[in-house]
Amino acid sequence: MIDYRSDNTGRAAPEILEAMLRANTGTALGYGGDEWTARLQDRFSELFETSVRVFPVATGTAANGLSLAAIGPGWGNIYCSEAAHINTSEANAAGFLGGGLKLVPVAGTYGRIDPAALRETLAGLDPAALHRGKPSGVNITQASDLGAVYSIDDVSAITEAAKAHGLKVHMDGARFANAVARLGISPAEMSWRAGVDIMSFGATKNGGALCDAIVVFNPELAEPVGWNLRRAGQVWSKMRFASAQLMAYVEDGLWLRLAQASNAAAARIAAGIEGLPGLRLIAPVEANEIFLELPGPVMDALERDWFQFYRRGRTMARFVCRFDLPDAEADALVGTLKRCCAAEARAAE
Amino acid sequence: MIDYRSDNTGRAAPEILEAMLRANTGTALGYGGDEWTARLQDRFSELFETSVRVFPVATGTAANGLSLAAIGPGWGNIYCSEAAHINTSEANAAGFLGGGLKLVPVAGTYGRIDPAALRETLAGLDPAALHRGKPSGVNITQASDLGAVYSIDDVSAITEAAKAHGLKVHMDGARFANAVARLGISPAEMSWRAGVDIMSFGATKNGGALCDAIVVFNPELAEPVGWNLRRAGQVWSKMRFASAQLMAYVEDGLWLRLAQASNAAAARIAAGIEGLPGLRLIAPVEANEIFLELPGPVMDALERDWFQFYRRGRTMARFVCRFDLPDAEADALVGTLKRCCAAEARAAE
Amino acid sequence: MIDYRSDNTGRAAPEILEAMLRANTGTALGYGGDEWTARLQDRFSELFETSVRVFPVATGTAANGLSLAAIGPGWGNIYCSEAAHINTSEANAAGFLGGGLKLVPVAGTYGRIDPAALRETLAGLDPAALHRGKPSGVNITQASDLGAVYSIDDVSAITEAAKAHGLKVHMDGARFANAVARLGISPAEMSWRAGVDIMSFGATKNGGALCDAIVVFNPELAEPVGWNLRRAGQVWSKMRFASAQLMAYVEDGLWLRLAQASNAAAARIAAGIEGLPGLRLIAPVEANEIFLELPGPVMDALERDWFQFYRRGRTMARFVCRFDLPDAEADALVGTLKRCCAAEARAAE
Amino acid sequence: MIDYRSDNTGRAAPEILEAMLRANTGTALGYGGDEWTARLQDRFSELFETSVRVFPVATGTAANGLSLAAIGPGWGNIYCSEAAHINTSEANAAGFLGGGLKLVPVAGTYGRIDPAALRETLAGLDPAALHRGKPSGVNITQASDLGAVYSIDDVSAITEAAKAHGLKVHMDGARFANAVARLGISPAEMSWRAGVDIMSFGATKNGGALCDAIVVFNPELAEPVGWNLRRAGQVWSKMRFASAQLMAYVEDGLWLRLAQASNAAAARIAAGIEGLPGLRLIAPVEANEIFLELPGPVMDALERDWFQFYRRGRTMARFVCRFDLPDAEADALVGTLKRCCAAEARAAE
Repeated sequence: MIDYRSDNTGRAAPEILEAMLRANTGTALGYGGDEWTARLQDRFSELFETSVRVFPVATGTAANGLSLAAIGPGWGNIYCSEAAHINTSEANAAGFLGGGLKLVPVAGTYGRIDPAALRETLAGLDPAALHRGKPSGVNITQASDLGAVYSIDDVSAITEAAKAHGLKVHMDGARFANAVARLGISPAEMSWRAGVDIMSFGATKNGGALCDAIVVFNPELAEPVGWNLRRAGQVWSKMRFASAQLMAYVEDGLWLRLAQASNAAAARIAAGIEGLPGLRLIAPVEANEIFLELPGPVMDALERDWFQFYRRGRTMARFVCRFDLPDAEADALVGTLKRCCAAEARAAE
Repeated sequence: MIDYRSDNTGRAAPEILEAMLRANTGTALGYGGDEWTARLQDRFSELFETSVRVFPVATGTAANGLSLAAIGPGWGNIYCSEAAHINTSEANAAGFLGGGLKLVPVAGTYGRIDPAALRETLAGLDPAALHRGKPSGVNITQASDLGAVYSIDDVSAITEAAKAHGLKVHMDGARFANAVARLGISPAEMSWRAGVDIMSFGATKNGGALCDAIVVFNPELAEPVGWNLRRAGQVWSKMRFASAQLMAYVEDGLWLRLAQASNAAAARIAAGIEGLPGLRLIAPVEANEIFLELPGPVMDALERDWFQFYRRGRTMARFVCRFDLPDAEADALVGTLKRCCAAEARAAE
Repeated sequence: MIDYRSDNTGRAAPEILEAMLRANTGTALGYGGDEWTARLQDRFSELFETSVRVFPVATGTAANGLSLAAIGPGWGNIYCSEAAHINTSEANAAGFLGGGLKLVPVAGTYGRIDPAALRETLAGLDPAALHRGKPSGVNITQASDLGAVYSIDDVSAITEAAKAHGLKVHMDGARFANAVARLGISPAEMSWRAGVDIMSFGATKNGGALCDAIVVFNPELAEPVGWNLRRAGQVWSKMRFASAQLMAYVEDGLWLRLAQASNAAAARIAAGIEGLPGLRLIAPVEANEIFLELPGPVMDALERDWFQFYRRGRTMARFVCRFDLPDAEADALVGTLKRCCAAEARAAE
Repeated sequence: MIDYRSDNTGRAAPEILEAMLRANTGTALGYGGDEWTARLQDRFSELFETSVRVFPVATGTAANGLSLAAIGPGWGNIYCSEAAHINTSEANAAGFLGGGLKLVPVAGTYGRIDPAALRETLAGLDPAALHRGKPSGVNITQASDLGAVYSIDDVSAITEAAKAHGLKVHMDGARFANAVARLGISPAEMSWRAGVDIMSFGATKNGGALCDAIVVFNPELAEPVGWNLRRAGQVWSKMRFASAQLMAYVEDGLWLRLAQASNAAAARIAAGIEGLPGLRLIAPVEANEIFLELPGPVMDALERDWFQFYRRGRTMARFVCRFDLPDAEADALVGTLKRCCAAEARAAE
């Protein structure tokens, strides 16, 4: 089996599990009152070059749903890409945790919001139209759910449009590391300096184990996050084991090295399959995911050759690269695709 | 410092963290589709001597809130002890995750529901009185939030009364291990054989690290639990690391050994302080918690002597024993209490 | 049949229905954009001697639930009397409409909060204790659910305690007219001048037909009320027919005349039954309700004599006087009670 | 002023208000326990030729939101037209009252769901994909929000597709009367015989005053509707005044006569403006609404001539006909449009 199903099928980076073991010493106040969690605040503030509040949470869905709930209110509308994870893959956690919050899709390409489309949408809104719900926030998924990355200019254009209408901005950074690694810019530039108020800081998909985090840049959002975490059952009593994971994740740039590895694997594959007959990239490969349009028989052949991946409809497939994907496995996929596409092309003649 | 603040200030049992390391091999399907989680179903079904569904969750609050939400409906009333953790210490997670569910206190002693009081309450209800909300469930905290343990007869009396009126029963087993260890009966007898439909199976307070679990005995509750876990952000994508913890927790009786240790520490202290002047046990010491009424100056003296514990009001203090509390620390508390109570008694003369 | 079941079993004051007929002319903008609703704002601002926002709603439950939801947040605790209508008789509307809001009973007499008990409760709270929920509001039911009336001093003592801890105050005025009529003070003194932020202004129980209202004194609460009314389906498109009812209700003091009539009927009965053997007033009769402890056989006899009323337990009965209760019906109740209590006293000898 | 803003700007039919006056006699049990509400059950069961439960509610938003909440569950997806009132104009009441319920648009024309598109959507769903939410219901707006009417065949095709996947069907009948009048079929054929489980039965837009209704065909939905009405504050204590309105609304076919009148007015206008230069019907005129694409200057001219209507974007306008719209006002609109379109056409040459 060669596994391209998801980056969450992979292992944890050993450094992260080892950090849990090291944290298993002495007693420590519960629910985040411990020293590890205190140091985490400092470490992330240093990482983001500003004072932030960081809240470890169990999952990306919790991070997203509770970030959006903090933006709120329950009668609010959150604008997002049609393909956004919050809109397609979280069982409407935002609506549940956000007390009726509504997600409203905005047009764009490759799973991204188009800044011009957002501007147009927001310009057409009438603040007195209570029956429409209150425009309250924008969600940016960085990297996007189709493996594309927003440029800083695009992020800034979106946050400017949002702020011009009093909306707050949430970044779903389930693959934030992949985007940062791709663009080679600082976490600060990618987030609060570009106008982001609050973000879901993903670790699990990039070598983490059991925690992600909410990072709050806009201080007025810290209070609702804190309260809702409690009543959503997201505050571990032995928080030190979560904070230790997140510390290890960013220590010495581990998170970026892991993302560079998975990005590189995806790029290697994308380069290898360029121009193959019958195969088309659905979105540019800018992070660690590859979305391909390819003939059904080619997908069948891949599965016969023990490749695991997700089908999305009859002619679309998703391949996700893990941080520890060996080059040999990347090359195996390229080789098989070459062979199968050629065979399929001959058959189609 | 000698730490009696909580059992969640303690370390994790090393076996549990080591199990995570062992699970860090190969790829595994996400969101509970892995082999560890499959084996966990079998292991817990064996442990409980019946086919159960077990869902790892991040915290006891999540386990409680989502168990009660599964009992539901949103217009339901859940009967519980006034002192129940769900009623006092979870920021109304049940009301939030349960869509407006209401907790209704029932009288009893030592943080327990009195079966007769429950019977009387339920007998007085008029099913046509929609304005009262729908009686839908009963919560039993075992061991209770004052450190007492329900006898099997009491549990059965409560579940019979509940079932006679069509209510379902949830057991908050944050300290289930302590109760099982105390009574020396099987997990099955303590739960579904006594009429429990669903339980929060605690691990964190008893040597766990980052997960507890919901155990479903009544199969019709599995579906709502499954859905709500998703939208509450409680389904880890790398679930294997949670399931591995829970497997290790029950392996070879570890969970009961840990609970026996913390129970024994509490019993040792309770025996040592019996009859001290000015000091009164607020509830029988049947698990790992000791609630004392004692003079304020004695509490001050304890703190000066580097004991950590929680004050509850001016003359009440809580001491919680961890599984790894050394006998020497137990004896130190007894010794200091003896000395301080005697001094205070002299001063009061 | 003589009907003492409730004040909502009665007719509407004819003036109120006639006002609807008069409003049935021409076209009018929907959802409260009409002239009747505009005039209602002015009329209530005049009535309360300050600028208020008034929102017609269908029921008292909606008024209460959405007022408390505006105080919010979802993680908030609202302190109220154990016997408060919001706590006993609205199917937890506050928890539902308020997104998980929790009601916390405070001790007191006759369905009222005791100001000293509230002060003590609030003094004992630790703002850092997120697991307790956030203290956010106090509910005062005026007149109370046991037919008693808060003095202005008591209302002020409660609102002062609330404000000292940053809590807002809601008055459930389902029988506000009865309380105002009883105390002979102005609506302003009874509400915002005594520290009330928002109130449910009842009409239905006092001769209204199909609407009550939310009156907002604290302007920051108007926005959440406005939004939530929309999504709760409480904004009539033909609002003029609701606003016209409320205008007629307060026109020329109609509301107070109606309340004086029902209060007088209750007082007449209370005076007539004073000192009867075997009968005890459970609360002082200060509005239009009478709560009696009386022997079961007396209740049976009343029912045989065609009196309708509600039993609350085996020895408690509630009698509610409508604005149009004839003196003859009041005297009939007194006469029958005299006869039955005497007979029961003889039988008991 | 000639008012085409909405059908809810109009008067109530006098018969409806007069029925309230007639109901103002004697005492009656509250919260729907009265005789008027009992007769309403019989009357609607007769009207629909089957045993139904009918619940009066204050607004169409309440009827829709609480119908969908009864279909539930909170983790459910409700499929609807992109243009559906529940999706665009109710501040996400369905999400709020339904505890996180999500609305999912399905393609179609003129504000209607296309049965084939629905079939395709449902066929593509994987029941194991919990992260997508649970497909639970379909909403049909009859007549649609663009003034079109579903044929019975289309309704049946939609309900068959829904039922094949275990989904329930809600009909938003805010303009049900207009659709029934248009198609000339029975209410039964249009609803439960065509597979509808529950409907919002509109009265307000068609000559009603202060109430609409939920009509339950599928008996298992009656219980959740009943409970949620309570906690949503939608159960009037003096329900007789609402039930009397609804009785009068359907008495002697009043509701259909009113709808025929407003339909006829719209048809008269549509016929009169056919083929005017620069003007295009956006949807067929099948009920009482006309959606036009027409040049901005023509809209400006209409407003100068005292016509009131709603602009939807720069070149789209909505005109709604009330039951009491005089022919002269219909002809006035036609005449002005003829004149203005001609002038605009000349100017554009």
